[in-house]
Amino acid sequence: MKDVQIIVTGGTIDKVYDPTSESLIFAKDDTSQIPGILSIGRCHFTHLHQIMQKDSQVFDNAERAAIVEAVQNASPSAIVVTHGTATLELSARWLAERVSGKTVVFTGAMRPYSLGLSDGGFNLGGAIIAAQILPEGVYGVMNGRVFEAAHLHKNTEEGRFDI
Amino acid sequence: MKDVQIIVTGGTIDKVYDPTSESLIFAKDDTSQIPGILSIGRCHFTHLHQIMQKDSQVFDNAERAAIVEAVQNASPSAIVVTHGTATLELSARWLAERVSGKTVVFTGAMRPYSLGLSDGGFNLGGAIIAAQILPEGVYGVMNGRVFEAAHLHKNTEEGRFDI
Amino acid sequence: MKDVQIIVTGGTIDKVYDPTSESLIFAKDDTSQIPGILSIGRCHFTHLHQIMQKDSQVFDNAERAAIVEAVQNASPSAIVVTHGTATLELSARWLAERVSGKTVVFTGAMRPYSLGLSDGGFNLGGAIIAAQILPEGVYGVMNGRVFEAAHLHKNTEEGRFDI
Amino acid sequence: MKDVQIIVTGGTIDKVYDPTSESLIFAKDDTSQIPGILSIGRCHFTHLHQIMQKDSQVFDNAERAAIVEAVQNASPSAIVVTHGTATLELSARWLAERVSGKTVVFTGAMRPYSLGLSDGGFNLGGAIIAAQILPEGVYGVMNGRVFEAAHLHKNTEEGRFDI
Repeated sequence: MKDVQIIVTGGTIDKVYDPTSESLIFAKDDTSQIPGILSIGRCHFTHLHQIMQKDSQVFDNAERAAIVEAVQNASPSAIVVTHGTATLELSARWLAERVSGKTVVFTGAMRPYSLGLSDGGFNLGGAIIAAQILPEGVYGVMNGRVFEAAHLHKNTEEGRFDI
Repeated sequence: MKDVQIIVTGGTIDKVYDPTSESLIFAKDDTSQIPGILSIGRCHFTHLHQIMQKDSQVFDNAERAAIVEAVQNASPSAIVVTHGTATLELSARWLAERVSGKTVVFTGAMRPYSLGLSDGGFNLGGAIIAAQILPEGVYGVMNGRVFEAAHLHKNTEEGRFDI
Repeated sequence: MKDVQIIVTGGTIDKVYDPTSESLIFAKDDTSQIPGILSIGRCHFTHLHQIMQKDSQVFDNAERAAIVEAVQNASPSAIVVTHGTATLELSARWLAERVSGKTVVFTGAMRPYSLGLSDGGFNLGGAIIAAQILPEGVYGVMNGRVFEAAHLHKNTEEGRFDI
Repeated sequence: MKDVQIIVTGGTIDKVYDPTSESLIFAKDDTSQIPGILSIGRCHFTHLHQIMQKDSQVFDNAERAAIVEAVQNASPSAIVVTHGTATLELSARWLAERVSGKTVVFTGAMRPYSLGLSDGGFNLGGAIIAAQILPEGVYGVMNGRVFEAAHLHKNTEEGRFDI
């Protein structure tokens, strides 16, 4: 049994509804939804490292460098990164050029977990399995599919990742 | 990209609350929850074959033979079987002795999907990924872990599968 | 603005799913769902008095006497009693003969609140309003209707209260 | 037993999450959440009249005149209006000056019903009860309280209606 490290960066999966602004925001105290998803999934063995709570639209190389650093510092070789879907494919490809010796699986959601009826639990469940059984490399798991970093592509119209 | 066949047998994941008897039953018309889980997971590429809606406590060799037959008749080599947790390990080991040339992943849930806050989506998301990337063999995916059939063991007290 | 006292007795509204026995039970520490329903309803002004966590099938005069006592001891005159639906009408009529000077509204649910998609919030929201605006007497509020105690009747087949 | 007419105008209660724009919108085909709330509440006797799906921030006298007309044309004397919370108090006071012979109860939600954990069901359950038992007049029911139109006041900071 491998240890699995989860690196939390924010993204849609972590958004919550704010009744004052009537919009979706990150929780004011930056609380992540990921521990709740793991608890509902009765998944008790992962290690969590929350490095930020940001929309991936705003990511540039500074955020990506922070992910690389968190991956390199992680003691497990099986790693899941929760990430916004907007630039998930860019971050995955950036990491693929900079990280070796680890299995890194990016995932996220099209609908915030806190709104119910979210794909977040299904995706995280898949990513955690993938991180344990795929060979070294950088991947994305979304909506039942595994993609190598080079082949990740968000189909915004359909609301999923496709070839 | 592999096709994935899902074989539905019932189990806790598929139970619904019946307000008349105030208990958990299978839907009177045997409707499964699995299509709803896939839809929420935005997973659109699987093939579904519902062979029964039963508690796995009542399974004996007749039910297991029906699963073997459905697995052998499935055209995809990547197969997920949704199953009650009570005898999931027995069915997996029975299949491991009788099926070859396929990757068969058993999964289920500790809490019915229709009650909300269920591990069913997390588990199914993991099983669908596992079926696509594991080598031939029979496995179980529960709560973030993959087990070979021989090592599947329900820890009833903790409500999960553990070594 | 009237104060409202909520007297909690258990019933379906308060049941939770137990993955070990795969059945619906009261929480092992007798925690009620009612505070959660009030919080989701953003209803912050009620007083809560939990006197038991029991199925109303098992109620006899001892449980009904305990409800009478809690009603009589309550300082607000507007009172809601959460109660199982099986004998809700019997308890309401028993109270109608023994309590005066208060507006007592019985309510409950056909589906446990903790399972999601429950009528519990809708019913409790109605009962709290009814307790504030109805004249003295004993009533039931279920599924959008107000009934005087004498006219409460559970239609088990339809899963609601009807004339 | 009184008939109850529900007039649907939109507001937060009816918003849904749109994964493409990652924001809250009215359903593209203007489908309302109110029938779903009534179904979960097992409330089967109301009449529904959807006159628009709009944010109440954009309401001016044209929208308010449409509500007046729908109220006057309704055959039941017990009426619930679902409405955005932003200008709910303005619409209620406008109606109070123009409608007589009916009991009109405004309600809505601080959190969209479709996101789960919403106050919408609790509020609608209260409004439907209030419409049947209050005397003629215009009222608001929110979060367990009944207010006459003149005393309705949204406390945006607390996210509820208060005196």
